[in-house]
Amino acid sequence: MTGSERLRKQLAFVIEIDKLKRVFRQTLLMDASRHENDAEHSWHLCMMAILLFEYANDQVDVLTVVKMLLVHDLVEIDAGDTFCYDEKAALDKDAREQRCADRIFRSLPSDQADEVRALWDEFEARISPEAKFAAALDRFQPVLHNIQTQGAAWRKHGVTSDQVLAKNRHMGEGSAVLWACAEAMIREAVAQGYLAEGRGRP
Amino acid sequence: MTGSERLRKQLAFVIEIDKLKRVFRQTLLMDASRHENDAEHSWHLCMMAILLFEYANDQVDVLTVVKMLLVHDLVEIDAGDTFCYDEKAALDKDAREQRCADRIFRSLPSDQADEVRALWDEFEARISPEAKFAAALDRFQPVLHNIQTQGAAWRKHGVTSDQVLAKNRHMGEGSAVLWACAEAMIREAVAQGYLAEGRGRP
Repeated sequence: MTGSERLRKQLAFVIEIDKLKRVFRQTLLMDASRHENDAEHSWHLCMMAILLFEYANDQVDVLTVVKMLLVHDLVEIDAGDTFCYDEKAALDKDAREQRCADRIFRSLPSDQADEVRALWDEFEARISPEAKFAAALDRFQPVLHNIQTQGAAWRKHGVTSDQVLAKNRHMGEGSAVLWACAEAMIREAVAQGYLAEGRGRP
Repeated sequence: MTGSERLRKQLAFVIEIDKLKRVFRQTLLMDASRHENDAEHSWHLCMMAILLFEYANDQVDVLTVVKMLLVHDLVEIDAGDTFCYDEKAALDKDAREQRCADRIFRSLPSDQADEVRALWDEFEARISPEAKFAAALDRFQPVLHNIQTQGAAWRKHGVTSDQVLAKNRHMGEGSAVLWACAEAMIREAVAQGYLAEGRGRP
């Protein structure tokens, strides 16, 4: 492979992140044919960002939102996907993801390693308007997938409506409109019997 | 589903485009475990856009490049992926893709239907610096996948080096640096025996 050392590092990273296509989530595709992977999930969120940014609570820089969504799951290449209702796996999620961030991002030229790291840190901190909106999309999309699959992932894991409401409530910090829509879908899922009402497992 | 008619249309589109995750390409994942789908391919190209835009021949607006790459394969939801070396399938590719564009984009609110259509038209026309660079990435990535899989898609279809050079040469209009890198990789693939040298099939 020719090119400068800089290009060589960039292409090694492009090759490494192909692994994101093999990290599978609990969410099913909307036709319920298989589990969704992190790479196609990230594409879907970016599409939503460019189509739905008018619903962000605050004005957002769309390119920053998209960049955050492109990189937000890269750390799962080593750490794996952590189902958001799995409280046991959540205990060491941060440590697993930090180790992966250190390994993967470091392979980029240092200026880009810093940029990607900063995007991921910003997404995780959920303080900037862009991060709040990106996080809202990251929560809204699985709700939409669950609705389309008659609550497949919710039912499989015995998730209840109070858990779904609690885990997704921060969506409102990024987009009151999308959270209102999600809340209505969650209520409808309970009414349709796709989502059990009541308290989560002890 | 609550929300305005506008939001209802946008979400119907978000649901419709989930089908892109089930459109498979000839390219294999870099570990050769399965074929790549269009949604994860589009994510990969967007990652390349934000990391490699310094190699565009002309200064490009990165958000426009990313938007084009996000939407560039949506028309394959109905039209299917057309392998770029399949000259028979190429004959009606435009007609098939135009019909899908008419169907899918029209389901969006009209301002966004127009925007997405304009992005796709711009990508296809390959005139603007952004479109030339996006097209270069769309050609560079499968070469990289072929190199990583010892020419799996090339060998399966009996593609020869002159065909690969001819089909990918326009990469240089978007990025001379990436085309030089791709040419070197193609030469190396011939040297390694991953790609047959010589003239294409009659």
